[in-house]
Amino acid sequence: MKGRILSGMRPTGALHIGHLSVIQNWVSLQKDYDCYFSVVDLHALTSGYEDKLDFTRLRRDIALDWLSVGIDPEKSAVFIQSEVKEHSELHLLLSMFTPLSWLERVPTYKDQIQQLSIQGKDLGTYGFLGYPLLMAADILVYKASVVPVGEDQLPHVELCREIARRFNYLYGSVFPEPKALVGKVPLLPGVDGRKMSKSYHNAISLTASSEEIKTRVQQMITDPARLRKDDPGHPDVCVVDKFHQIYTPEAAEVAENCRAGKIGCVACKRLLAENLEKLLSPFRERRVYWEEPGRVEKVLEEGALRAHEAAAVTMKEVRSAMGL
Amino acid sequence: MKGRILSGMRPTGALHIGHLSVIQNWVSLQKDYDCYFSVVDLHALTSGYEDKLDFTRLRRDIALDWLSVGIDPEKSAVFIQSEVKEHSELHLLLSMFTPLSWLERVPTYKDQIQQLSIQGKDLGTYGFLGYPLLMAADILVYKASVVPVGEDQLPHVELCREIARRFNYLYGSVFPEPKALVGKVPLLPGVDGRKMSKSYHNAISLTASSEEIKTRVQQMITDPARLRKDDPGHPDVCVVDKFHQIYTPEAAEVAENCRAGKIGCVACKRLLAENLEKLLSPFRERRVYWEEPGRVEKVLEEGALRAHEAAAVTMKEVRSAMGL
Repeated sequence: MKGRILSGMRPTGALHIGHLSVIQNWVSLQKDYDCYFSVVDLHALTSGYEDKLDFTRLRRDIALDWLSVGIDPEKSAVFIQSEVKEHSELHLLLSMFTPLSWLERVPTYKDQIQQLSIQGKDLGTYGFLGYPLLMAADILVYKASVVPVGEDQLPHVELCREIARRFNYLYGSVFPEPKALVGKVPLLPGVDGRKMSKSYHNAISLTASSEEIKTRVQQMITDPARLRKDDPGHPDVCVVDKFHQIYTPEAAEVAENCRAGKIGCVACKRLLAENLEKLLSPFRERRVYWEEPGRVEKVLEEGALRAHEAAAVTMKEVRSAMGL
Repeated sequence: MKGRILSGMRPTGALHIGHLSVIQNWVSLQKDYDCYFSVVDLHALTSGYEDKLDFTRLRRDIALDWLSVGIDPEKSAVFIQSEVKEHSELHLLLSMFTPLSWLERVPTYKDQIQQLSIQGKDLGTYGFLGYPLLMAADILVYKASVVPVGEDQLPHVELCREIARRFNYLYGSVFPEPKALVGKVPLLPGVDGRKMSKSYHNAISLTASSEEIKTRVQQMITDPARLRKDDPGHPDVCVVDKFHQIYTPEAAEVAENCRAGKIGCVACKRLLAENLEKLLSPFRERRVYWEEPGRVEKVLEEGALRAHEAAAVTMKEVRSAMGL
């Protein structure tokens, strides 16, 4: 039997190229694992209960992004978290024996509350405190053995392992302890050199057209000290170079030519735009297929059913262990 | 359309005569309301997650008690809380916008934690803090208009009303604000004069046989100063009198005769035993019917289905209001 993977993303806005490595990692994991990829709308509510997000659109969009990049619904269950009721059921059952102090001590908890209160959000809610517990339920309800996460999520996976251990100790062995698989996420700046973010309008969307790619690359900040194309350039202060390092196989050579004043910014940007076009065009083609009305909906419906079936098996064991 | 009632009891042990007035109140409410009576096993877990209760037996027993006293499954939905998944789903959704401080300030919260820590129970858990929120979900998922409760539960109903208001404010009007209906619960002492409690072995079980009733009444503590039957007695220090006040129509006369030394303890107890027999024997007869294998199970199964159907209607509105 294959190991299981659970991972998810919040449907809070369109994905950009900075999210790509995570999805590409999922795509490659599909070969060796039974994968459950969840659009975690309930998590979006834990910090955004006042945001009135258009979940109907956002959930579809993010699933479309995943499918375009290569998530294969024949292999993996792609589903919306709130449609699989076992997540909330297990969350409640795990809450019974989870010490408050475990949740209060999650390293990101107090930081996030503070950060978000600066944005005017009051997150001193029961649900926000319980968010790592909901994540534990997400993982454990599929008995996932591996959880691909970013480094910032490591404490949450550790908490999930503690909760699994406590359950097994109190009620008998039901849950495996999942392992975190920390993906290397290259740090991509936005075209203006700041953090790439939709809200800064400096991101390259996963759905960018050829024209948009060219425009975005042209907007990238280069070495401000370089006035003429045969001046020696400084790739270390150039946004274009950061992208070459990830998307251009001969990046080292390009950087050397820049330092030697042998390649100008226009040619350098043209090369990057070509490489980004090569990267994104297959996604664009796949997206045309998935955008046909009803296709994503069918994937999500079948995914929810598959997820529900797996989760129901676990919940039967859980209820029996707890005497319910 | 009739108003709706939601009420419940924890399946933590056999019911005794001290619980009777609550169930009799439910019985009389069946006439005017659509009633949902829930065996709240999840609540039992909030404070007893380590108790390894035999829920299979306890849930059946308590439903049998209710049916014996006169709960009519043709009129009312009798069901097990954990079998209706909408309770945990709504609990999670309400958690998103429920301030931690509202839960921390529930008057009983800190008291109970302290009391239970004396018994060696550590209830600093996420689930125990969330118990009033679960109760709010229990009530709101049926849009109950009336909630029969004991006086100690009033702050919980008040919290439920606040949560309903906050939901309606944030997402649009979905929930009515339920009203508490405080039942007068006569304070019945145990046969030894202490609080009636199964664990003190001083209770009269709802299922007591005629013989058990006689034995229990004989064990009742009477006025210790009264040595001979024509000594004047003091009903105010006599356990038998407390029972007469509830179960004997001519209680005042009996007390007067006691004070005048005109009725001895033996005759006085015989009268009480007869009245308790009159009280409990109809329950005993009904119980014979409901004890037939499969009957309670069928009631609980149909009750869960009815509860689920009502709750699903509410949850559809809730999800739509929250944009899910």
